Amino acid sequence: MTTITRLDSAQPDFQAALKNLLAFSAETDRGISDAVDAILSGVRSRGDAAVLEYTARFDRLQADSMAALELPRERLEGALKSLPLHLERALRQAAERVRMYHEKQLMQSWTYTEADGTVLGQQVTALDRVGLYVPGGKAAYPSSVLMNAIPAKVAGVKELIMVVPTPDGVQNELVLAAAAVSGVDRVFTIGGAQAVAALAYGTDTVPQVDKIVGPGNAYVAEAKRRVFGIVGIDMIAGPSEILIICDGKTNPDWIAMDLFSQAEHDELAQSILISPDAAFLDAVQASINRLLPSMPRLEVIKTSISNRGGLIKCGDLDEAAEIGNFIAPEHLELSVEDPDAMLPRIKHAGAIFMGRNTCEALGDYCAGPNHVLPTSRTARFSSPLGVYDFQKRSSLIHVSQAGAKTLGEIAAALAYGEGLQAHARSAEYREG
Amino acid sequence: MTTITRLDSAQPDFQAALKNLLAFSAETDRGISDAVDAILSGVRSRGDAAVLEYTARFDRLQADSMAALELPRERLEGALKSLPLHLERALRQAAERVRMYHEKQLMQSWTYTEADGTVLGQQVTALDRVGLYVPGGKAAYPSSVLMNAIPAKVAGVKELIMVVPTPDGVQNELVLAAAAVSGVDRVFTIGGAQAVAALAYGTDTVPQVDKIVGPGNAYVAEAKRRVFGIVGIDMIAGPSEILIICDGKTNPDWIAMDLFSQAEHDELAQSILISPDAAFLDAVQASINRLLPSMPRLEVIKTSISNRGGLIKCGDLDEAAEIGNFIAPEHLELSVEDPDAMLPRIKHAGAIFMGRNTCEALGDYCAGPNHVLPTSRTARFSSPLGVYDFQKRSSLIHVSQAGAKTLGEIAAALAYGEGLQAHARSAEYREG
Repeated sequence: MTTITRLDSAQPDFQAALKNLLAFSAETDRGISDAVDAILSGVRSRGDAAVLEYTARFDRLQADSMAALELPRERLEGALKSLPLHLERALRQAAERVRMYHEKQLMQSWTYTEADGTVLGQQVTALDRVGLYVPGGKAAYPSSVLMNAIPAKVAGVKELIMVVPTPDGVQNELVLAAAAVSGVDRVFTIGGAQAVAALAYGTDTVPQVDKIVGPGNAYVAEAKRRVFGIVGIDMIAGPSEILIICDGKTNPDWIAMDLFSQAEHDELAQSILISPDAAFLDAVQASINRLLPSMPRLEVIKTSISNRGGLIKCGDLDEAAEIGNFIAPEHLELSVEDPDAMLPRIKHAGAIFMGRNTCEALGDYCAGPNHVLPTSRTARFSSPLGVYDFQKRSSLIHVSQAGAKTLGEIAAALAYGEGLQAHARSAEYREG
Repeated sequence: MTTITRLDSAQPDFQAALKNLLAFSAETDRGISDAVDAILSGVRSRGDAAVLEYTARFDRLQADSMAALELPRERLEGALKSLPLHLERALRQAAERVRMYHEKQLMQSWTYTEADGTVLGQQVTALDRVGLYVPGGKAAYPSSVLMNAIPAKVAGVKELIMVVPTPDGVQNELVLAAAAVSGVDRVFTIGGAQAVAALAYGTDTVPQVDKIVGPGNAYVAEAKRRVFGIVGIDMIAGPSEILIICDGKTNPDWIAMDLFSQAEHDELAQSILISPDAAFLDAVQASINRLLPSMPRLEVIKTSISNRGGLIKCGDLDEAAEIGNFIAPEHLELSVEDPDAMLPRIKHAGAIFMGRNTCEALGDYCAGPNHVLPTSRTARFSSPLGVYDFQKRSSLIHVSQAGAKTLGEIAAALAYGEGLQAHARSAEYREG
């Protein structure tokens, strides 16, 4: 019997209870932050030698040179060929769908010309070189390689360098196969803060990148936070979450399994269901109790659901949408009869899974959209990982002779107003 | 006589000398970081009362309530009406041009339907509420209000809340007028880390925002860095920089003044000129010496140019573009005969000012593009502030009955491969 927090939007302390359910503190441990400090400055000053030492110490992997820790392209292709056929096919199909979707995200340069001949616009270019962190061990997900690597390659990133720790030298075939399928250019079997440092500062062997993406443990997250500014980074992700809004007409077993699919990631993952139908919430609770014992990741699911799960009774679907906007979930399932009618009311969510057929798992692997999504209410202000994270814009300004006169007068007036005389005179020179 | 560092790309240690010229360390002082810590937790736990105390202490501004620190809309309109006519007109014209340019940046939602009826897409929505930090005192720039506020309003942000410290109660009319022109919704005369905290956590009077943008001193920057994750933030800006690539045919006085216009911002600002024409570099040096004494901000310019300025002799314009890509400057002037021919070789720059007429000052105020730009080589991976910083995307996935079968098989294969059985079963349920 696994009991889940039950809330009712009609109860007087609902707002406080909801905030309490969502509360999650991501304070960085001082010990981690000090250790990361030492590793970053070690790699910064001693380069490859430091990376080799840390790899020997933390991953129990000895190597004479960094070159020995690079996997040749043939190794990746070999991993792909060694997969069971159905798995190789699934990986290739998923990659193809992810590529197709992301191609729609490509930004294009544009310009426009004003009446006096002045041209304004925006030039879009790809990042030169990107680092992709892939965790080793239990959280080694090939799908995550696809989701991070493919948008970068679609954007036109010339060199995509993957780092993946291989503790005790154990390599994950599926992860290497995913690297082959998604066009990763180079792979180093290094990990932890030392891998982040190598990518951010560059060493004799590992080239300096412009941005580092991909998930990692607390050391990796802290290292990324520290090198932000020297290189770009993606979001630092919190625990994964799902919010399901259901009208009460979906098979409760399906909903229970969708909640499990989030909960099985991690004890801290959060699975919440909202429905106006109290009897349906009971039915889902019953499905949970019946299905849970058959799940291989039973213990993780149980801990996650008991500590952080929630079943919320709301007044109607409008109110459910409102509560959903407050939660701003990473994954939002609209398991309702007419999800299109509901969509305009949804403002904040990383990904929206519409209709009873669209479970989150389809999106996690192969629907096409990215599975790297904003967590912990950050969907209020941020977006899924996309091609746009590997492109950037430069403003274009080409002022005509006539334009220089008009604009020079405006600029000079404002510059004198701000007390910046060199700005004003520089503009006045162009007034002709 | 102000001497500027001279480099030559043909000298053997050029790369090292260039890196040395660009080097800038932005380490946060421990004292600042501790002070910010205390202020953030004060505001977090005591809300308005703490903000009032800090405002009294740091800005020497006493108020009985936070409401007394809010400026009514009429105050802003009054400031606008009180301006000299030419300044009001310049402000309105600049705002109008900035608005027109930014309207081109609006992202739209899109979807596409696959053969089996599955719909995929991306829903674009605006942030609900944004905080805009505007510095008080000497760095109070009305143009900065326009550049931060207008993109937010174009994006459709419903509530834009400006905070601006008014030490000793002194209010800047031009800044308030700029707020009126650009559609700021509410203004509080608070500043420092306490204003950032109020916006990030919310108080009884100041509503919690979703993102905080705008420049500030070291305390403000540190506070923004700390609250990142609870709210979004824009980039933490380093000192401003310009790189001018000139073929040697532009009036050297113009180029000298353009270098000054950057240098006058701040002693740490960086102004660099690259040209294949050594005699032209001499001519610009002579212009600098001749023009400098007439500049009101002489001392700032002199310090900036002597400590951080550079005149670089290169082989040809191709090499200049290459060096420019390494520097990835915030502002890049292409003061050459055919800037269009050069543009395809320019990969990394915040804004590109093309042709001899297009001095940076025109872009700073009124050309249309944003003047909030990536500094310190971050143009390698980031973009000017834009409408896109106030919009975000949600992925849309609506899988058809037929699609659920195809996708369910792929997802289940990969999920079992990753050992995530609940994912697999959730997908299999939908295979029908």
